[in-house]
Amino acid sequence: MKSDDLLPKIDRRTLVSGLALLPAAGSLLSTPVRAQNASSAPLASWTDGPAKQAIIDFVRTTTDRLSPEFVAPEDRIACFDQDGTLWVEKPIYTQLVYCLDRVPAAVAQKPELKNQEPFKTVMSGDKAAIAALPLPALEKILTATLTGMSVNTFEADVAKWLHTAKHPRWDRLYTDLTYQPMQEALQFMRDGGYKTYIVTGGGQDFVRVYAQRVYGIPPEQVVGTMGGIKFGYTKDGKPFLTKEPKLLLNDDNAGKPQGIHLMIGRQPRAAFGNSVGDRQMLEYTGAGGGARLMMLVLHDDAQREYAYGPANGLPDSKVGAFTQALYDEARKDGWTVISMKNDWKRIFAFD
Amino acid sequence: MKSDDLLPKIDRRTLVSGLALLPAAGSLLSTPVRAQNASSAPLASWTDGPAKQAIIDFVRTTTDRLSPEFVAPEDRIACFDQDGTLWVEKPIYTQLVYCLDRVPAAVAQKPELKNQEPFKTVMSGDKAAIAALPLPALEKILTATLTGMSVNTFEADVAKWLHTAKHPRWDRLYTDLTYQPMQEALQFMRDGGYKTYIVTGGGQDFVRVYAQRVYGIPPEQVVGTMGGIKFGYTKDGKPFLTKEPKLLLNDDNAGKPQGIHLMIGRQPRAAFGNSVGDRQMLEYTGAGGGARLMMLVLHDDAQREYAYGPANGLPDSKVGAFTQALYDEARKDGWTVISMKNDWKRIFAFD
Repeated sequence: MKSDDLLPKIDRRTLVSGLALLPAAGSLLSTPVRAQNASSAPLASWTDGPAKQAIIDFVRTTTDRLSPEFVAPEDRIACFDQDGTLWVEKPIYTQLVYCLDRVPAAVAQKPELKNQEPFKTVMSGDKAAIAALPLPALEKILTATLTGMSVNTFEADVAKWLHTAKHPRWDRLYTDLTYQPMQEALQFMRDGGYKTYIVTGGGQDFVRVYAQRVYGIPPEQVVGTMGGIKFGYTKDGKPFLTKEPKLLLNDDNAGKPQGIHLMIGRQPRAAFGNSVGDRQMLEYTGAGGGARLMMLVLHDDAQREYAYGPANGLPDSKVGAFTQALYDEARKDGWTVISMKNDWKRIFAFD
Repeated sequence: MKSDDLLPKIDRRTLVSGLALLPAAGSLLSTPVRAQNASSAPLASWTDGPAKQAIIDFVRTTTDRLSPEFVAPEDRIACFDQDGTLWVEKPIYTQLVYCLDRVPAAVAQKPELKNQEPFKTVMSGDKAAIAALPLPALEKILTATLTGMSVNTFEADVAKWLHTAKHPRWDRLYTDLTYQPMQEALQFMRDGGYKTYIVTGGGQDFVRVYAQRVYGIPPEQVVGTMGGIKFGYTKDGKPFLTKEPKLLLNDDNAGKPQGIHLMIGRQPRAAFGNSVGDRQMLEYTGAGGGARLMMLVLHDDAQREYAYGPANGLPDSKVGAFTQALYDEARKDGWTVISMKNDWKRIFAFD
């Protein structure tokens, strides 16, 4: 009896010490606010169909030791675009809403901006004029509101803003507007031992503020557009970091595989996107051997969310573009298109 | 008997599925060449004394739930410099040896380099002249041997070189010249749930080639000097990445906290270094609240390894400098200095 007793104990201790090594163990100990699966069945908010099946088949075939397409645990890397893939990107990117909201504070700190464009237009509150601002004007706004402050100040500002700013259509916090089926896909991939990364054109520092809380993804697994960082000291000699108005990497289009190489150093096995900005990431993911999963979210549900791009014959749109060319490439290369309308039973956790 | 048989099996399966979630599980499944602890006691190659005690106390106090200095698992980040901290950096950095060894191949590919300096000097084999090459000349060599090729070609070249190139003093592979006590410190930190990172002035892509095999550290946990990466397609349309002659981040001195912010996005709790290049990393680590561990390896053992810097009254050296000013700052700020001579029972696994 004694030796029989001993065996399970040893195994349990080994398991517990193994769990202590898990970087994600923190999420088990703290209280994540992100939406949990509605039911214990995997991908419960997905309609049975080719999209759901593609995810299930991929995880099954790459995690089954007896499968010829088994993937070693350390190579299980899955990358997710954010805007339009994990949460709503319309009518404009959430980070851009933040930047526009921060303009008054930026002007208060630098009063000379008040009479300069595009700050004058933003301060006027003229929505049509603001919506018509060209890209160089937007870049000036990004620089004025995303750089020049310490990293800590920026993080505190973003966190504060996220607790009050609401989306005009749903009158809900932006962090409530993540897609429930994609939250389930993130969890399902992680349950299969995949390390989930956000690979976003958005600011790396911006997304990191809420990625753990909202998606269960720690800061080191957020790859985004990176700006320069300056190291300096406070008057009393304490080191701190300042966000500089210098672009290190635009993590969009060809920048996505570049960011993946810099931050991860391995080719992903799975990638999820929704626009031409994700094209190269999906191509790069698909370029390796063995089982690969490439998926694109198609916004074809004007009633529950938005419809844009080639779905329903709509013209190619500029922001978050799911162009006809992307659609054609997806078909040619065997990428799976996710129809929000048909593949998702519900869009948000609050639905 | 049947149910007794079953128990270990179930536990074993649970253990295996738990291990499947471990990013580092690969090292358990493959055959790591890195040295294992000589005995099961932690830090077995360390002499009992203040350095060993500082590591043990830090891990104990930050992982004990009842301790006021308990650190949440997700915040357990430990950063290790490489050259001179984890492995030998004398007489010159290993990566520089690689670059010098690669010069003939670079010249073969671009014959016009043959009559240009500094390639002419390197090809002459004149060791004294090579050793006297100034920094701008070395930069030309780095650019010619570390950029211009695909990421995959580079990784294969480095891997091949590491299997044959030997250190002149010990006539051993460079990857054998890691410090056994530091391997134990890495493992001890990981056993305490710390995520261990290399934060090196060396090339990020270079160190990633062997970091998993030699230190048990996966590529995404190697922060190093980063170059530009270009995305392109082969003739038959397959995507690949090329290493560009463009510096994104010099991960040394103030670049270390910058690299840590870019790649990790959190302040480390522990940092190990050995030179002025690690100063800002240790300052940045020490700037947060709660328990912090800052350690510096002092090379004061000419017999078993090397002695340089202020130890034994030697003058400040240029490469891998443990200057008197650094020594003074360590004393002032409570950083622990590790004496290789006194704190380490042995230096290498083969000792």
